[in-house]
Formats: sequence, structure tokens, C-alpha cells
Amino acid sequence: MDFKTWMAEVQARTERALELSLPAATLAPRRLHEAMRYAVLGGGKRVRPLLCHAAGAVFATPADRLDAPACAVELIHAYSLVHDDLPCMDDDVLRRGKPTCHVEFGEATALLVGDALQAQAFEVLARPGPAADPARQVAMLAMLAQAAGSLGMAGGQAVDLDSVGKSLDLPDLEFMHLRKTGALIRASVLLGAHAGGADAPALERLAHFANRVGLLFQVVDDILDATADTTTLGKTAGKDAAHDKPTYVSILGLVRARELAGELREEALATLEPFGAAGGRLTELTRYIAERSF
Amino acid sequence: MDFKTWMAEVQARTERALELSLPAATLAPRRLHEAMRYAVLGGGKRVRPLLCHAAGAVFATPADRLDAPACAVELIHAYSLVHDDLPCMDDDVLRRGKPTCHVEFGEATALLVGDALQAQAFEVLARPGPAADPARQVAMLAMLAQAAGSLGMAGGQAVDLDSVGKSLDLPDLEFMHLRKTGALIRASVLLGAHAGGADAPALERLAHFANRVGLLFQVVDDILDATADTTTLGKTAGKDAAHDKPTYVSILGLVRARELAGELREEALATLEPFGAAGGRLTELTRYIAERSF
Repeated sequence: MDFKTWMAEVQARTERALELSLPAATLAPRRLHEAMRYAVLGGGKRVRPLLCHAAGAVFATPADRLDAPACAVELIHAYSLVHDDLPCMDDDVLRRGKPTCHVEFGEATALLVGDALQAQAFEVLARPGPAADPARQVAMLAMLAQAAGSLGMAGGQAVDLDSVGKSLDLPDLEFMHLRKTGALIRASVLLGAHAGGADAPALERLAHFANRVGLLFQVVDDILDATADTTTLGKTAGKDAAHDKPTYVSILGLVRARELAGELREEALATLEPFGAAGGRLTELTRYIAERSF
Repeated sequence: MDFKTWMAEVQARTERALELSLPAATLAPRRLHEAMRYAVLGGGKRVRPLLCHAAGAVFATPADRLDAPACAVELIHAYSLVHDDLPCMDDDVLRRGKPTCHVEFGEATALLVGDALQAQAFEVLARPGPAADPARQVAMLAMLAQAAGSLGMAGGQAVDLDSVGKSLDLPDLEFMHLRKTGALIRASVLLGAHAGGADAPALERLAHFANRVGLLFQVVDDILDATADTTTLGKTAGKDAAHDKPTYVSILGLVRARELAGELREEALATLEPFGAAGGRLTELTRYIAERSF
């Protein structure tokens, strides 16, 4: 199967799995469930589920075992976007080409949507299925919690918040991004590998890979924010500069940021070499992330 | 050991366990960790940890096995208070006798504090210890997620939000409270029982008990909100009436609400009888919840 077909297939099955994992909009409280579905379904590139499935493919993991971890990381990501867009945070009105959740449903509901989606992520991952061994499933739940918490994504957002108007240096920026986007990207890769029964050396290698890919993803994001337009992105472009936020582009300039993206791509690809052909999907996905334009 | 001594001991060990479970305030991001500790430590009656330990006592569970579930439910509770107090929700300035988290640290940080505390709850419960059998630990994590999510606490808050200014009837009010406060109280009892290795019939009986105690807790809360003063409560009194929120007092009147509290107390106590002396702490705690004045 070529990469584009594989990607479309994973995106479609993730959409179905998310659809099934969320309570029906007819179930009380209806407005909350409607808003949760609005925030999650029918949008997004599903980069984290793709990473989860691609990492699972290294170990020839059946796709249905990867649906739960793929949904779990996407639900955490979706909740973070809803909260990130709130007026007290980025105060944004456009996301995935639609009005943001609080614009559509009000701030209080959007707050609860994020809260409920986070719980839903753990609920999905705690269902039977994602690992043959329950001890490994507990480890996967611990990993998701760490990735989402104050030493992971939420912590990265706190650093981001404190960085507005400050001139961070490159190590500080990397510290922030390894948490803000990196922690959940790392969890996406490692949960897929766990579901496939990966051993400790493989997990360690993939953690190193995921750290490079996470930074690559962020550098490309910063480049796109500085160069693409709002319609292409489906979210407000030029937001970082407008909010006076330090980015790879503001610190390094566009030329050097593009060089850095290339270096990170090569480092990530090099860590995959020992997996040989089994690392094929991760290799393709890394190239896709490096070259994406939206 | 008499009840008051037992209670003080559980509160003290819960404080220590929470203190240990939260990242140090010296660890980056410092402001976030400081704010998380502010929101969790040194306050609160710790009703949910008390219920967890009292339910564990039915099965003679060692107290150190109950610390993780007790912390987990208290962390979920603490996060819900931080988000509930935000300007877009109840917009409250006083909690546990101190300025609310967003008054002290700003709205954006308070939002992240709640988000990070929820993740921390799952992280604590996913550590080794709370159950001898990892399959049971997965079930406990699933239970916590359901209690926190859109069919539990977050769902109850959504119903609460929609109820402002409406005249709910008693079944609607019960529907809301079984979720808003009831779901986490039920989880507190059942997680304690799970940690003690309870079998299915005992869990079912305790679920019934917990539903009664959850409603009892809420009825007493409504009575206190209508009759006590702000200094005694450590939070803003008279808030429900001021926000035009339906309560047991507004629907039933004070006299009938007090009668209902008595009935719920007796129903709860009756479900404990088959446990005999082993149910002693739960019996004492039920009486305490019925008679509390703060």
C-alpha cells in the first residue's frame, strides 16, 4: 500500500474510532456532548494517531489494537486546542477551518469540553484491548498521564505563557517545545510501540526518534505560521508574531529554521535505520511532517 | 481508635501523600507547580480521601495501599474547584478560606493548574501499588476516568451550567447531583473497596451506599449554603441563591431538605448493616457528613 493510501486509511479509521469513543450527541448532557464532538470530529491532520499507527507497524501490530492509543492521544490533543483557544489563553476564533469551540458554544462549555475530553482519553485507553498484558496497559496509562501533565504538555504551555514578550534563547525554546508538543508526540510513538509489544531497547530508540520528530514538527509549524496564509492553515496565521511569542523563525530567522528542519529530519531518519523495512511507515511519515504545507 | 483521631490521621497522611505526589515548587515550570500546590495543599475537609480510606477499612486494607486512590480523587476534586471558580464559570474569589487560584495566579495559569491536576490524578493512580493485580488497577483507572468525564463530574457541571435561572424539578436536580458531586464520591468509595480486593457483590452494595451518601452530601451542602456564613464555610455563602441556581433548599424548602437529609442518612446506614463491624468507619463518616456544619 502506498503512503498516501495508508495515511488516508489510518485517518478514516481514527475518525470512526473517535466517533465511537465519544458519547452520542443525543445523550444527556446533550450540549456538552455535541460540543465535544464538534471539537474532535471531522478535522485535523491526525498526526498523532498516524505516528501511533506507524510506530505500531514497526512491530506488525494489528491496526485494531492501535485504535485506542491513537484515539487517546488525539483526544488529549483536541482538549489542549480547545483550552488553548480560550480568551484567557490565545483567544483565538478559528481552528481547523471552523469557529473555535468557545465561539460556537460559549466559554464555560468549552472549558468543560476540554476537561471532559481529557478524562475521555484515559477512559478510552483503560478499555480492554490496547495491550495483551494489563501491567503494560497500566504503564501506557502512566505514560499518557505524564505526557499530558505538568512535566509534559500542560507544563510546556505554562512555559509558553511565561515566554510572551521575552527573548528566549534556543535551549529555552527547545525546553518548552519538548514539553508543549513534544511530550504528546513522544507518547503517540511510544504508545503505538507498547501496543505492539516493543521491548525496552526499541522503546528507547523510538523515544529518541520521537524527540527529534517532535522538534521537527514544531520548527515546521513555526515556519508555516510565518509564511502560510490563514485559509491554507485552517487556523489563524501569523499568530506567534502578533502575540510576540518567541519561535524558531524569530530566533533563528527563516533560512536557518529551514536548515534546522532538514537536520532534525535527517537525525530522526537515522534513528530508524536499525528497524529496516519495518520502520517504513515512520520513515514516510517523518518525510511528510518535514514537507507538509498545512 | 476513636473516629476523630482516625479522621485526623487520614487527613494528615493524605496531606503528606498529596505533598509527595505533586512536583516540587522548585521544579520547572515553577509558577505552575507553585499554583498546583496552592490549589491542593493545606485545605479542605478531604471528604473523598476519608471515604476512600473508610471503604478500604471494610476489607482491612493497609492504609498505604489507599494513599494513591485517595490522592487521585482529591486531585480530581481540587482541579474541578479551580475550574469551577474561574470567571467564565462561578467567578468566585474565595475557596478554603484563601483567594481562589485564578485570583492569586491569573486565569491562564489557573486553567493549566486544573488541566495538570487532572492528569496528575491519573498519574498517581497508575503508579505501582493501589492493587495487587494490574487488571484491577486498569479497572480502577477506568472508573476514575468515567467518574471525571462527561457522564460523570464534568457532565454534572454542564447540567448545572444549563440549569441557572431554570426551575428544575427534583428528579432533574438528582440527575445533576448524581453526576456533579455523586460520581466522584462513588469513585472514592469504590476505589477504596477495589484497593482492598472487594468482590462484585460488595462493590454493588457500596455503589448503592455511595449514591445515597453523595446525595446526602449535596443536600447538606445546599442547607449550609443557605444557612451558614462565609467565614464558617471558607467559601462564599449564599452563592446558589445569588446565582439563581436550583438547590434542594430552593425546591423543597429548608424543613423538607433537612428531613430528606435524615432519610438519605438512614438509607445509607442501612446498606452498611451486612458489613457489620467492618463498616464502622463508613458508618461514622456517614453520620459526620450528615451533621457537618462547614
